[in-house]
Amino acid sequence: MAEGAQAVGEALTAHAAGSLRVRELFATEHARHAEHLDRARAAGVPVHPVTEKAAASLSETVTPQGLVAVCDLPAVELDAALAERPALVAVLVGVADPGNAGTVVRVADAAGAGTVLFAGDTVDAYNGKAVRASTGSLFHLPVARDRDVSAVLAACRAAGLRLVGADGYATGDLDTADRAGELDAPTAWVFGSEAHGLPDEVKSQLDATLRVPLYGRAESLNLATAAAVCLYASARAQHRA
Amino acid sequence: MAEGAQAVGEALTAHAAGSLRVRELFATEHARHAEHLDRARAAGVPVHPVTEKAAASLSETVTPQGLVAVCDLPAVELDAALAERPALVAVLVGVADPGNAGTVVRVADAAGAGTVLFAGDTVDAYNGKAVRASTGSLFHLPVARDRDVSAVLAACRAAGLRLVGADGYATGDLDTADRAGELDAPTAWVFGSEAHGLPDEVKSQLDATLRVPLYGRAESLNLATAAAVCLYASARAQHRA
Repeated sequence: MAEGAQAVGEALTAHAAGSLRVRELFATEHARHAEHLDRARAAGVPVHPVTEKAAASLSETVTPQGLVAVCDLPAVELDAALAERPALVAVLVGVADPGNAGTVVRVADAAGAGTVLFAGDTVDAYNGKAVRASTGSLFHLPVARDRDVSAVLAACRAAGLRLVGADGYATGDLDTADRAGELDAPTAWVFGSEAHGLPDEVKSQLDATLRVPLYGRAESLNLATAAAVCLYASARAQHRA
Repeated sequence: MAEGAQAVGEALTAHAAGSLRVRELFATEHARHAEHLDRARAAGVPVHPVTEKAAASLSETVTPQGLVAVCDLPAVELDAALAERPALVAVLVGVADPGNAGTVVRVADAAGAGTVLFAGDTVDAYNGKAVRASTGSLFHLPVARDRDVSAVLAACRAAGLRLVGADGYATGDLDTADRAGELDAPTAWVFGSEAHGLPDEVKSQLDATLRVPLYGRAESLNLATAAAVCLYASARAQHRA
């Protein structure tokens, strides 16, 4: 389900582009952005008027906007997500919080990543909270899911990507690697869970691990801000190169 | 109030350093990290045993850890916060969400900023949600609050800081400014509200505004991830210079 004007608008755009199917749209009388209703009807999507109460029961948010689209999940295979050999990819391993996962998708999109891969026990990308946190970016990028972390890493390597894990305990740091030109290569950044980071058996399959340097007294960054710093370091290096 | 083992530990450390006063500590029988109780007693802080139910009623979280410290707010004046002439400062103007504000404090601490200034209508730094999101960083940095945005900006300028606003609509971008050496100077990064960004009357008082480049299709970054990219760009430039 895509909720609210922005997400519904993005879902309708993805529907028009053929990358997703909007099955139906529910809207209250007072829903803002009525242009979406016209777009849906023009695209052959059934539009159902509902009461505020019914819309609230469909909604997962505390302040529903009265506009909910039901979409068929765009199931993307790992190979299809990597088919265009993107120069920047984010891989989430065991990320539990849907808000964090959605925010990383937004950041990855902003940094120009070609796909985000949800590996292992990572939360469902189409969880409502993840969709909202991505503010539409889940409809901009192919997002693939595979429970087999090793298969995800092998597919990235086969697609010509260097595998770099973000790890607060790594000996190498991001800025030193940047100055050494290590971030110029096509890179899959691998991010672990908020609580436990990357497991050793995943780290052993990577080409490198790097830490974000901590210049002050903070012990760590949260997942989304660490991902922002890492992905933007690669984007900057690749656009400079 | 500081809740949970990490925040209480940081508060007790700040208490020992004289930068904050822990008035009392409440702990349930099952609270983990009993060493904090010994530290509190050794520092002359009264420790009160409470029931799980009482602890839950003191707590603002859904899963309370049974450990809550009541602290006197360290009221820091603007001039005191800038007295050591830090090379990196974050200024929040009208930031409404306490979780975002606390996360920016954590990122600013990690990037080596000397202070975070809460200007205008920005949320209270010592809101419980902000304290939790900062994961202790609110006790690492002096944090000053002033409703007069112009006074905050003037104080930064008087402390030798270049005033740079993060603005999605700016013509100049972060990477270009970085390559031109513009980020090497001592910098106060000014961040606006999640919904409205920086008002024009604030932007007119700055030395520059810069946007984080968007390489993909995302329309923007959220406040905390944008702040992470900006503050780390300055930290990197300053440590390289």
